[in-house]
Amino acid sequence: MNDPEASRQSITYDTHPDRYKHWRLTFAGPVATLHLDIDEDGGIKPGYKLKLNSYDLGVDIELHDALQRIRFEHPEIRSVVVTSGRERIFCSGANIFMLGLSTHAWKVNFCKFTNETRNGIEDSSRHSGLKFIAACNGTTAGGGYELALACDEIILVDDRSSAVSLPEVPLLGVLPGTGGLTRVTDKRHVRRDHADVFCTLTEGIRAERAKEWRLIDDHAKPQQFAAKVKQRAEDLAAQSDRPADAKGILLPPVKRIIDGAGYHYETVDVAIDRKARRATLTVAAPSSGVASDIDGITAAGASWWPLLMARELDDAILMLRTNDLEIGTWVLKTSGDAQLVLDTDAALARHHQHWFVREVIGMLRRTLARLDVTSRTLIAMVEGDTCFAGTLAELLLAADRSYMLCVPDDLQQEASITLSEMNFGSYPMVNGRYRIAARFYEEEAPIAAARAAVGRPLGAKEAAELGLVTATPDDLDWEDEIRIVLEERASLSPDALTAMEANLRFGPGETMETRVFGRLSAWQNWIFIRPNAVGETGALKVFGSGNKAKFNWERV
Amino acid sequence: MNDPEASRQSITYDTHPDRYKHWRLTFAGPVATLHLDIDEDGGIKPGYKLKLNSYDLGVDIELHDALQRIRFEHPEIRSVVVTSGRERIFCSGANIFMLGLSTHAWKVNFCKFTNETRNGIEDSSRHSGLKFIAACNGTTAGGGYELALACDEIILVDDRSSAVSLPEVPLLGVLPGTGGLTRVTDKRHVRRDHADVFCTLTEGIRAERAKEWRLIDDHAKPQQFAAKVKQRAEDLAAQSDRPADAKGILLPPVKRIIDGAGYHYETVDVAIDRKARRATLTVAAPSSGVASDIDGITAAGASWWPLLMARELDDAILMLRTNDLEIGTWVLKTSGDAQLVLDTDAALARHHQHWFVREVIGMLRRTLARLDVTSRTLIAMVEGDTCFAGTLAELLLAADRSYMLCVPDDLQQEASITLSEMNFGSYPMVNGRYRIAARFYEEEAPIAAARAAVGRPLGAKEAAELGLVTATPDDLDWEDEIRIVLEERASLSPDALTAMEANLRFGPGETMETRVFGRLSAWQNWIFIRPNAVGETGALKVFGSGNKAKFNWERV
Repeated sequence: MNDPEASRQSITYDTHPDRYKHWRLTFAGPVATLHLDIDEDGGIKPGYKLKLNSYDLGVDIELHDALQRIRFEHPEIRSVVVTSGRERIFCSGANIFMLGLSTHAWKVNFCKFTNETRNGIEDSSRHSGLKFIAACNGTTAGGGYELALACDEIILVDDRSSAVSLPEVPLLGVLPGTGGLTRVTDKRHVRRDHADVFCTLTEGIRAERAKEWRLIDDHAKPQQFAAKVKQRAEDLAAQSDRPADAKGILLPPVKRIIDGAGYHYETVDVAIDRKARRATLTVAAPSSGVASDIDGITAAGASWWPLLMARELDDAILMLRTNDLEIGTWVLKTSGDAQLVLDTDAALARHHQHWFVREVIGMLRRTLARLDVTSRTLIAMVEGDTCFAGTLAELLLAADRSYMLCVPDDLQQEASITLSEMNFGSYPMVNGRYRIAARFYEEEAPIAAARAAVGRPLGAKEAAELGLVTATPDDLDWEDEIRIVLEERASLSPDALTAMEANLRFGPGETMETRVFGRLSAWQNWIFIRPNAVGETGALKVFGSGNKAKFNWERV
Repeated sequence: MNDPEASRQSITYDTHPDRYKHWRLTFAGPVATLHLDIDEDGGIKPGYKLKLNSYDLGVDIELHDALQRIRFEHPEIRSVVVTSGRERIFCSGANIFMLGLSTHAWKVNFCKFTNETRNGIEDSSRHSGLKFIAACNGTTAGGGYELALACDEIILVDDRSSAVSLPEVPLLGVLPGTGGLTRVTDKRHVRRDHADVFCTLTEGIRAERAKEWRLIDDHAKPQQFAAKVKQRAEDLAAQSDRPADAKGILLPPVKRIIDGAGYHYETVDVAIDRKARRATLTVAAPSSGVASDIDGITAAGASWWPLLMARELDDAILMLRTNDLEIGTWVLKTSGDAQLVLDTDAALARHHQHWFVREVIGMLRRTLARLDVTSRTLIAMVEGDTCFAGTLAELLLAADRSYMLCVPDDLQQEASITLSEMNFGSYPMVNGRYRIAARFYEEEAPIAAARAAVGRPLGAKEAAELGLVTATPDDLDWEDEIRIVLEERASLSPDALTAMEANLRFGPGETMETRVFGRLSAWQNWIFIRPNAVGETGALKVFGSGNKAKFNWERV
């Protein structure tokens, strides 16, 4: 039963195309078009107007939902045009007044979700045959250009006034931090001195030079613009392997109950202990046999366990991140029948080329990646009714630490861990490495040893020998040791933990995505609490007031 | 003439083994030993005591100097033992009271120099046949362990009490930010959950488990410790190609004049315009022919132009960074005869395997790398008496932007740029890529085109076509355009510029070093201004007071 009090305080990520305030989603053959036409008065929080097609978290929640609809409900879609429903403006980026009013934590969480949604666009381009075109039919500024950067191609209207720009540094004293600086270099290979000029130019750069500098792929006069975009969308669609005749899988709302104890779903339960500042997330295996042939799988659709579980886990992560900032430790548990998870993994592996199964794997990959970049301590507990098997063992591998109860040999109820082939490459982290490979720094021997154990239930001793768990206290020590671990963790500086975890989770091996989350976000977070940005006379604070920012000129 | 007023205010990096307060440097055959025995009362600034072999910037200035002496004055040295001159304590890291008293800028600058010195140890191991052993004869904590991590091998005494530790997170609410988190993962491949446990453990980890977890390479009982260290030092020395019989090159003090106008050296001049918050660094080519055979080169020694210039430029960078925080823009200029630089480059290339020339190239590589991570805007100006040739063209390539004066064809005095083979791999940045390759994202065509131009003076048009300069205003526009560029730059938020430049200078391609400077430093800088660390009840502030830190528990 929903607790109205708890529920009222929470931001949720629920929406549906019928309820979009800011986007319109249309379909024409293999091409979907996302029209951005932001409702000025539709901010997710009070206190600001979303002028000039500028966005806040609510706009991105709709974008994220639209991408999910395209992925699952519209398998016939092969390319997506992202454009504006307005004249002369594509998007002016994140709303500055919203940023000025927001807490540090809100800004950081907002940027993280926005980054994840943009990474999701690239993830679908890379893995799912969905290609994206930014049809910039007007001014494309800041976060608007960052959205365009996440697309495969950028086409800018050449109307002698429209430009692409990243004016954050000169206008606001902050970074183009939603991937902007990183994608300009890593993805588009804009020469670094050109990037330097571009990122300090309030007015941006128009069509011809923008193409010359690689900031866009192409431009067209207003009369030819629509035709050129259509042509490119069809060209890209022609290269896709998405099926023309498959039936989409409808995504019903995630069923979530919010009450004083936490968040409750069919396969995921979140129990919040506010005093201990800790949440226990328990993910349940399927309760009965799961469809394993394509007909059964597609008939099950959104209720097929791996998709149901991924959507619920994803929602739980977002709810906790957004609404429960003080809940610093997440204990990860699993329950149920390992064999049913392993059977499901076998079906995922067998049918991974089928469009729907491919999308389900993608949803799992992105959800686990969301966990990796979550600024909470993750501790996995393997004890009692536990089910760290196959795909669910990724939770164990995503954790900062894992504890497994070791019971004496003569007792047979020992909890176990079982790996599946899905643990060896199906769910790469944002650094491009799968979790077991990253754990062992890609060394052959420990990876081969783990792989040789696929399918075999591993007790505490063997799991420890294989390096899969951090510690295996026995039942005499378990209670005390776990209590101390959790209490000590909860006593440490939240900032130091966030930063330490962000460094240790991603060891060597960097990609554009880790550079966005690691390097760029860390710098942006720094700026986001510097007086030069957020002090009384800081650039972000005085924006729009007519006053000039006053800086401390020291270079740090 | 030294201006006593200006001089008194400046921190300098001058020192000599005869004047060391904190280190003792001894030599035995091919092995040098650095004994750390810190003078409690010898802090570089007043207000704190350097207890428990804890360090401040002054200690690291001596370490840096000692490394330079070993490199140049002692070619017979092949391995270096870093140990403590005290009983039961190796080093307890950066002094906390110093950190608590320091400004944000001081902390960041201190950490950067410390990082560079540690990177310099690894640079010499990689390139110069100098191997380093940390002989941890006692407690090895925080920055002390980070110093050990920079060595090739770590040997810990097994006396049942000595441990290695990174207690920054639990004790101080900050990160092991001088490479600690990064080297534990990237270099030593400590499993991430072990690293997580280690980094939250105040008391650290003792010999046996430390070896098991890869935190150290070996351990020895106190009676066997000295012999084991000696044996490993000799083993490593045996693998080196440093010459046994070469004569060292003495490093006299850098001759620096400080006055109201700036810093003045023989080959480098720094003119500071405090009102414009700008410094102009002019590096001069040799004034006459430079020795090009080994006898002449070694006879010239520290006055050989490339070494003289590198030492002076390095000093200028450090002086400006430490003493002139508000000077946010550095204009990079060169002057003199390009042919003399190209002749010198030819000698560097021809003799690069000779130990001394190898060290000179190393000094140039590290100095240029220091420039890359300097938090100041770098703008190169190519006009008039200019000499961006070969090695000096690296300054152009290190700049955030470069402007080159374009004069009409009928005038013959056009400034030019000339590349040499030294621009194609001899001076890798900390990301492992040389500047031209990084500039062009390792694309073959533009790199080949630049290489084909080696040795040919390039006018503005050709330099622009080859992508070597940002813009080439003609003489009608030059003055206005440059004035506007410099004024606009000086008006922007120093924080946003620092962060933007740090992102754009290092595009794709990450190494341990860039992860230290980029990811880890950015997170540490964030923490260094968070109230949880530096607020009145922050962990760094209350350390040693007996009070407990009070945290805002929100996770960001």
